Amino acid sequence: MGNGNVIKLLVVGTVAYDTIETPFGKVENVLGGSALHFTNAASFFTDVGIVATVGRDFKLSAIDFLKDRNVDLSGITVGEGKTFSWSGRYGYDLNQAITLKTELNVIEEFKPIVPGHFRNAAFVFLANIDPQLQIHAINQVTTPTLIVLDTMNFWIEHKYDLLMEAIEKIHMLIINEAELREISKEHNLVRGAHKIMAHGPSWIIAKRGEYGVLMMSEKEVFLAPAFPLEDVFDPTGAGDTFAGGFMGYLANVGEVSSETIKQAVVMGSVMASFNVEDFSINRLKHLKYEEIKERYTAFKRCYEFKDIEFG
Amino acid sequence: MGNGNVIKLLVVGTVAYDTIETPFGKVENVLGGSALHFTNAASFFTDVGIVATVGRDFKLSAIDFLKDRNVDLSGITVGEGKTFSWSGRYGYDLNQAITLKTELNVIEEFKPIVPGHFRNAAFVFLANIDPQLQIHAINQVTTPTLIVLDTMNFWIEHKYDLLMEAIEKIHMLIINEAELREISKEHNLVRGAHKIMAHGPSWIIAKRGEYGVLMMSEKEVFLAPAFPLEDVFDPTGAGDTFAGGFMGYLANVGEVSSETIKQAVVMGSVMASFNVEDFSINRLKHLKYEEIKERYTAFKRCYEFKDIEFG
Repeated sequence: MGNGNVIKLLVVGTVAYDTIETPFGKVENVLGGSALHFTNAASFFTDVGIVATVGRDFKLSAIDFLKDRNVDLSGITVGEGKTFSWSGRYGYDLNQAITLKTELNVIEEFKPIVPGHFRNAAFVFLANIDPQLQIHAINQVTTPTLIVLDTMNFWIEHKYDLLMEAIEKIHMLIINEAELREISKEHNLVRGAHKIMAHGPSWIIAKRGEYGVLMMSEKEVFLAPAFPLEDVFDPTGAGDTFAGGFMGYLANVGEVSSETIKQAVVMGSVMASFNVEDFSINRLKHLKYEEIKERYTAFKRCYEFKDIEFG
Repeated sequence: MGNGNVIKLLVVGTVAYDTIETPFGKVENVLGGSALHFTNAASFFTDVGIVATVGRDFKLSAIDFLKDRNVDLSGITVGEGKTFSWSGRYGYDLNQAITLKTELNVIEEFKPIVPGHFRNAAFVFLANIDPQLQIHAINQVTTPTLIVLDTMNFWIEHKYDLLMEAIEKIHMLIINEAELREISKEHNLVRGAHKIMAHGPSWIIAKRGEYGVLMMSEKEVFLAPAFPLEDVFDPTGAGDTFAGGFMGYLANVGEVSSETIKQAVVMGSVMASFNVEDFSINRLKHLKYEEIKERYTAFKRCYEFKDIEFG
């Protein structure tokens, strides 16, 4: 790919250099960013086009392996200055990162341009960036089946009105449970989701870290636990990896229904369970499709039980 | 019952008067205590014998309704002084209670005497009390199939050695995830459970509040989510209600296997989902068996999905 073919799944977000400290080690200036984690997962299922920007310091060859998985990198622009970089630390409670430093660098001037051959992608993921840029990206896609948006507390606190404007234009929101509470001003997640759905989206997925995800629609609630691992190494990018597995699976199936969305939630959870097993994008970079099948089987076994017969 | 028949399920714990404040209201001196919440749930499935103590102020007539559900109250002694009382408050995050006051009263002199016709109960639940008393109770039962123990941070911090002595004598531990971490000195729950299992128990169940429970054995991991409710009113006793549904279901089936334990975990989760819908023991006091079947069906629907077929 990368030669102008139409793609099924478009992601707009960041490609970054991360510096991460966990109780199990430290890595400096490793590959990261929402769009990269997302694509790394989604590319196991479908062809993906990325829109992002990097600095002149970015080694594009390091993500060349994605081309072998039908990823179109032609929407990555190289801006003046350095690549966006994030530095964070986790304690033993790996659910919550402490941000040590954020250097926006090229992101400050980023204005996503969706290449012509990406514009009729049916599936669109707007990773966590300024809601103004998310709206700008939405306005460039022509025939979306499913637009999904992620955000963070910073935008909720500083650009609430723009964020709500973006939310009115999308089909699904995938956010952390704390962010769901913050946007909806409701502690109860089910109530909060219904309040947000009244503004447009048909589905809300609340990410709950090691506790899995909760998907809510007007009429349904669906839960997927996180796969219980003995070795959780680095949770950075787990949420975007979930979204990548989720959207990649859906884009490949090509049909959006209650049934396929639930399956996609499970596939997203399976992919996220790999991501946390190593730093950066490493685990999914070397992952084999066969391993996904095996993990899926193990994952299902964790919550399958024989139906109870009532007397 | 209550007339000296052999019982299947024995619980040793507390019967209390609680004063509870949540964002949704406040109640004073209402029925509570681990053994009462446990029995209220378990009695839907099997006959239960309670061993506990109350003070002269306790209105025994208030728990007479349990006799209609085959509960044997003859193991409740009336001590000199007042009934054990607990007072606590919850914020919007209903996962964690702040204890405002604990008055031990009659509990201070409590030494559980298991009545003769309770001693060959096959299923035994030692609710959260002094580990010394738990050991004393274990020594009185003659042919247990399954002894399950609960505890709390206070005993972990003040009577660790005695607690470990008790843990060596049991088959299963049901505790909060934070307590599992505290006992095992491991942050990772799967690792922590394996460390504790090396001391005797074959199963560990970690309770995770609104996130459900995680059951671990030597070879298996099983997850049950908590039923996502729009109205969570008062979580007091949810853990004991879970244990009651769990043990009641198992005692009724009469067989302990990987399969029945998983079903029992689901039944415990279903019962806990009712408990939080009202203050004190009220929801389960008026619960109908038909409602349990309905909730079970709704609960399953929350995490059932069509199997994914890999290409």
